Amino acid sequence: MKKLAEMSRDELIAFKAAAQKEYDALKGKGLKLDMSRGKPNSKQIDISNDLFKLPLDGNFKMDGIDVRNYGTLDGLPSCRAMFADILGCKTEEVFCGGNASLTLMYDTIAKAFTHGLLHSERPWSKEEKIKFLCPAPGYDRHFSICKTFNIEMITIEMTETGPDMDAVESYIKDPAVKGIWCVPKFSNPDGIIYSDETVHRIASMKPAAPDFIVMWDNAYCVHEFDGDFVPFPDIIAECRNAGNPDMVFEFASTSKITFPGGGVSCFACSVDNMAYMKKLIGMQSISFDKINQFRHVLFLKDRAHTIEHMKKHAALMKPKFDMVLSKLNAQIAPLGIATWHTPKGGYFVSLNTMEGCAKRTNLLAKEAGVAMTGAGATYPYGNDPKDSNLRIAPTFPPIEELDVAMDVFCASLKLAAAEKLLG
Amino acid sequence: MKKLAEMSRDELIAFKAAAQKEYDALKGKGLKLDMSRGKPNSKQIDISNDLFKLPLDGNFKMDGIDVRNYGTLDGLPSCRAMFADILGCKTEEVFCGGNASLTLMYDTIAKAFTHGLLHSERPWSKEEKIKFLCPAPGYDRHFSICKTFNIEMITIEMTETGPDMDAVESYIKDPAVKGIWCVPKFSNPDGIIYSDETVHRIASMKPAAPDFIVMWDNAYCVHEFDGDFVPFPDIIAECRNAGNPDMVFEFASTSKITFPGGGVSCFACSVDNMAYMKKLIGMQSISFDKINQFRHVLFLKDRAHTIEHMKKHAALMKPKFDMVLSKLNAQIAPLGIATWHTPKGGYFVSLNTMEGCAKRTNLLAKEAGVAMTGAGATYPYGNDPKDSNLRIAPTFPPIEELDVAMDVFCASLKLAAAEKLLG
Repeated sequence: MKKLAEMSRDELIAFKAAAQKEYDALKGKGLKLDMSRGKPNSKQIDISNDLFKLPLDGNFKMDGIDVRNYGTLDGLPSCRAMFADILGCKTEEVFCGGNASLTLMYDTIAKAFTHGLLHSERPWSKEEKIKFLCPAPGYDRHFSICKTFNIEMITIEMTETGPDMDAVESYIKDPAVKGIWCVPKFSNPDGIIYSDETVHRIASMKPAAPDFIVMWDNAYCVHEFDGDFVPFPDIIAECRNAGNPDMVFEFASTSKITFPGGGVSCFACSVDNMAYMKKLIGMQSISFDKINQFRHVLFLKDRAHTIEHMKKHAALMKPKFDMVLSKLNAQIAPLGIATWHTPKGGYFVSLNTMEGCAKRTNLLAKEAGVAMTGAGATYPYGNDPKDSNLRIAPTFPPIEELDVAMDVFCASLKLAAAEKLLG
Repeated sequence: MKKLAEMSRDELIAFKAAAQKEYDALKGKGLKLDMSRGKPNSKQIDISNDLFKLPLDGNFKMDGIDVRNYGTLDGLPSCRAMFADILGCKTEEVFCGGNASLTLMYDTIAKAFTHGLLHSERPWSKEEKIKFLCPAPGYDRHFSICKTFNIEMITIEMTETGPDMDAVESYIKDPAVKGIWCVPKFSNPDGIIYSDETVHRIASMKPAAPDFIVMWDNAYCVHEFDGDFVPFPDIIAECRNAGNPDMVFEFASTSKITFPGGGVSCFACSVDNMAYMKKLIGMQSISFDKINQFRHVLFLKDRAHTIEHMKKHAALMKPKFDMVLSKLNAQIAPLGIATWHTPKGGYFVSLNTMEGCAKRTNLLAKEAGVAMTGAGATYPYGNDPKDSNLRIAPTFPPIEELDVAMDVFCASLKLAAAEKLLG
């Protein structure tokens, strides 16, 4: 097959006609498929069904605490210890919450606005302007939190080793820049693992804002689907060692380990931040669901056991990622109309079309019955300057459906590229 | 026995000496007892242990939804319908959340500050001053929410039929007065049920603030421990019928129905408020724990079944309230040194000492090993103008411990009263 860019106009016209025919045939099937969100498939969720059966012996105490009653705001000590083991930090640095780390992230920003963070001179609501650094492509829900609080988002380019740190180090000289979003392992959507140097440079930043916050969303900390567990640095210790103990909040959850809608979330931070946040959260809650924390400790036990458990997810996920990549390699690679990452963990394949083709590809796929994350969603304000990035989320559909959905996607991409080149 | 006020100085001195002896003997036992919080006893929690065994058939779908996965922000339709049945409102008016209605209350106020409510002219953080009406004695955690947001609290006297509505109707002419806290059934701590007239006057208010909010904390809506279920009006409909559809948010939970730390919470409001809040909450959460909502629907079913279930709590709670009241009637009533309510539901006995004796009683009880809610806690800013109100929470200790704790309390109260009268 010839690259599209090398085709003559006649060849392109013929290519487009063939692509249109292929697309129309698929569209004619009246499909309704979904590759839009990083959502585990029900077979993945079944892996954790034994959680429903716990506790097996009718004993509702752990750490000397009746897990069913009120109390213990920061979570069951055993659950805090389990997350500390997984994240590589200390138990006293962990706060266990409810079912969603997104809620903990939102609440942290909300409290910055209503009360200020530990080193804030005033609540952010009293500041003229708040800005955040947003490595992109990135996670749309991080950007939504910024948007809802009217935080100005500054796009930072992602590189193969993490955010462009030269840009970051330059922007943080502005005291209105109060934070940065990071997904340090298997970044959403690129699947990039931040290099040790990037992590070190982040931990060593000297921002002008005394209350600058690194929102370290370690969503995919043990989420390899291809190959062995990749160890990661403890950001809490990294920041402490760099003289920035209070600059970071780390977030994680079991949403993609056990139950997406019914897992346990946590944040980790310095003990000074912890004391400060506990005082504020104590006005909001007496305690989070310790029953679910209890079940999760009985079921997941510790880091080693959790990593074993994740291999069951990997066994179900890898064939789907292989399918996506083999379709792209077979149908798209020879045409030279897109590039993509080959991740070893996380939930996405991030693909870049030729400039100006993402929205059109997205629309074509949608019209043929395949829902995908909206083009632009991986950028602040939904604004992908090159209209190029698309996020493929292969986990939710059964593999038979993914097979067809990827054919639709490839046909849409080919058609969009041909249209673009024909002008 | 003679009333203390009628005793001669010599009689008082003798009385005080006897009270001191009784107190010292109890203190000498080295007790460690807790009557501080409205916390169910573990035997009450055991009533709901079968929740742990659900679902029995391994079916994780309800309303066509996999309860384990992401999605359905406003909660499982069946769970919303169950709370609507309990509260007497419509399913579309109910939002089911996580384990704590306190969190939903806090979040509602937090969003008023960061974003404003539906009819706010601007976020409350941009207002000079926010004031709230606080019927007192009342719930300390409501007051803590006000305090953390720097809301000025205005104390409203509680009457036998609810808040002093003349005072309420006068204060709401001030546009800085943005809300009122209400516990309409078995008020915390007095155990008062608002009269129909009070409810109607609340629903019919015409506050100057366009975004005035009635925080209707229906914490004890089905929580009778003495006698049959007492029906209550649907505040959502009352406000709608009075032309104030968006003025109220109602809150409830199963914390004192199933598991204090692992129940399901909800709020209810107009459909316009619901649409507004869902847009905001959608930035904070993908969905709350539908697994727990699912279990609760299977276990509690509907209002009728929930009321039956509550009788099991009543059977464990009534002997404790009877014990408190019989101790007070036997040891305190003849002395004329305190008055108290005789509630038929809720979690407290609210007692008023002679003026200026609450703090001292509290301290004496504490020094003899009995923890109680701090004197003053039932008033805004912890400031009980008469230093008179004490909240007794009899449910948590086993009845044998409650027996001794009440002896300590009565001895402390007698000693404090004698000290006061002797000057």
